[in-house]
Amino acid sequence: MGRWKPDARGRLEQAALELYGERGFEQTTAKEIAERAGLTERTFFRHFADKREVLFPHANPLRESLVTALDSVPVTAAPIDVVAAALESACGLFAERRELARQRQAVIDANTELQERELIKLASLVSALAEALRRRGVADPAAILAAEVGVAAFKVAFGRWISQPDQHDLARLVRDTLEELRAVTAGK
Amino acid sequence: MGRWKPDARGRLEQAALELYGERGFEQTTAKEIAERAGLTERTFFRHFADKREVLFPHANPLRESLVTALDSVPVTAAPIDVVAAALESACGLFAERRELARQRQAVIDANTELQERELIKLASLVSALAEALRRRGVADPAAILAAEVGVAAFKVAFGRWISQPDQHDLARLVRDTLEELRAVTAGK
Repeated sequence: MGRWKPDARGRLEQAALELYGERGFEQTTAKEIAERAGLTERTFFRHFADKREVLFPHANPLRESLVTALDSVPVTAAPIDVVAAALESACGLFAERRELARQRQAVIDANTELQERELIKLASLVSALAEALRRRGVADPAAILAAEVGVAAFKVAFGRWISQPDQHDLARLVRDTLEELRAVTAGK
Repeated sequence: MGRWKPDARGRLEQAALELYGERGFEQTTAKEIAERAGLTERTFFRHFADKREVLFPHANPLRESLVTALDSVPVTAAPIDVVAAALESACGLFAERRELARQRQAVIDANTELQERELIKLASLVSALAEALRRRGVADPAAILAAEVGVAAFKVAFGRWISQPDQHDLARLVRDTLEELRAVTAGK
């Protein structure tokens, strides 16, 4: 312990998800996470404010990536296509993280308080996307509806991606799910 | 105080919404609500477990009404049309309650904890609708997507209804918003 090894944050995250899965989120302490990762508790608190922040990082890379991607789509595209392009581009964030995402989801599904936190995170994605669309001149209700629909499709696609081992391509699942959503909404 | 008057629950609700709006939700006590309604604190607690339950009744009439309405739509209808019919039919619940709904929303918008509670309530509507669709033989992802889309449209329509004094017909706004959602999703 104490000696420097690369990627302390990544090791802490992995150790935390293992322990949350084995013992439950409530029953795991920061000290135990640090021990499992071969690091000190002090190092844990240099990277995370508390054990919940392992699951919900203060900086929200998904939200930032979505807004950045959205701002770079040509202004001529329809709002839903802008949202789709942003969502597909953000999928790169998860490329090497499917097992971590699966573990994280299992921890969240087992804890009501964490489920609430996840709902808040998703609602903040909807707000950020709608706001970015409005900045591009998309009026309401189109802006809020495109954002709601996009996040709903992403959520369903993400659930399929982590639960279906034969589905490797998250971006493709997002595209397919949006296509299904289109068909459902059209009444087909 | 103490003498029986009709509709204690309704008077308590009205008094609570007034006080939450005037002083803030956190700053209001059950005792003050009862006093404003001309009733005893004991009567308050016969109707509500706590002051939050005034905003989020334990029995969720909207969810129950949606599921009942959904179960009575012909099985031949497309999932989205089933959801639309259920949502429109549930609008009757709010017929005489626009001012109360407006006050309630203002209280919720001013308080993070209440916003979280509202997200949970909306998520439980999505689950209930999706589950009722599955019982009718609708497979996933169509069931969950139709439920997500329906609740998103309802949320937006409800926001318009309580903020736009010239819009009186919630069911019509739900229909219009679903139509706009259809156009947005189609990429128009």
